[in-house]
Amino acid sequence: MEKNVLGTNVIAQIGILVHDIEKTAQVYADFFGVEKPAIELTGTLEEAQTNYNGDSTEARAKLAFFDMGSTQLELIEPDEHPSTWREALDANGEGVHHIAFVIEGMKEKIKVLEANGMPLQQTGEYPGGRYAYIDTVKDLKVLTELLEND
Amino acid sequence: MEKNVLGTNVIAQIGILVHDIEKTAQVYADFFGVEKPAIELTGTLEEAQTNYNGDSTEARAKLAFFDMGSTQLELIEPDEHPSTWREALDANGEGVHHIAFVIEGMKEKIKVLEANGMPLQQTGEYPGGRYAYIDTVKDLKVLTELLEND
Repeated sequence: MEKNVLGTNVIAQIGILVHDIEKTAQVYADFFGVEKPAIELTGTLEEAQTNYNGDSTEARAKLAFFDMGSTQLELIEPDEHPSTWREALDANGEGVHHIAFVIEGMKEKIKVLEANGMPLQQTGEYPGGRYAYIDTVKDLKVLTELLEND
Repeated sequence: MEKNVLGTNVIAQIGILVHDIEKTAQVYADFFGVEKPAIELTGTLEEAQTNYNGDSTEARAKLAFFDMGSTQLELIEPDEHPSTWREALDANGEGVHHIAFVIEGMKEKIKVLEANGMPLQQTGEYPGGRYAYIDTVKDLKVLTELLEND
């Protein structure tokens, strides 16, 4: 395997899939003694250009972020359209979905990962950047998300 | 729920269960461009006083630690004796097992968590401290480990 594939080893985020983000975000807020964050919604297909396994998808998700050291915890409640989130929630139930890393050079990184046998699963845009989910489960035992901020 | 139950919201560790720690630790080392860490072994029953679901257990695990920002990634390969690690690996396969927090006042914290409907699952000693796994899955959608260092 190519070494230092991502150019970073700082875990920026842990993503957790949930059925009811309002409820679980309140539990997290109480448990950790912080304010319940505003629930965000990922962009429309037109805004986010969401692509899942090679096809455009209308999928959107509600998100809530908690800062927990240098790592952010992200709660994710997906809608019913096809996505990495919906697929994993249906297959495995609630729980950890991915760990995320902030990288530079998204296209190049995706190419290198694919060449190392780690397929691209989903991409999308968010205000100020873009993400890519990479199927690193065989190698790292967990899904990886790349985040590139402009 | 009691608020700010742990007294911290810094994720100290993400624990990942694996079948073959030598192999997966090498993959992580290559992928993130760091040295493969020495594989550690948890203490014997006499040393670690490991207790799982109320009973002493001979269970031990091989561990490998990677520093990834303020969060440490821990690979865990359990032996065949009963433990939270073995149970989860058999039930769910390889993948994320827990997130961990460094706390103070272990006994008190466990009492408060149990009073809030989050049962104690496993405890043990390590050189310089002790851990407790708490079943927070219903509330937080992930298992929690408490770490208390002397």
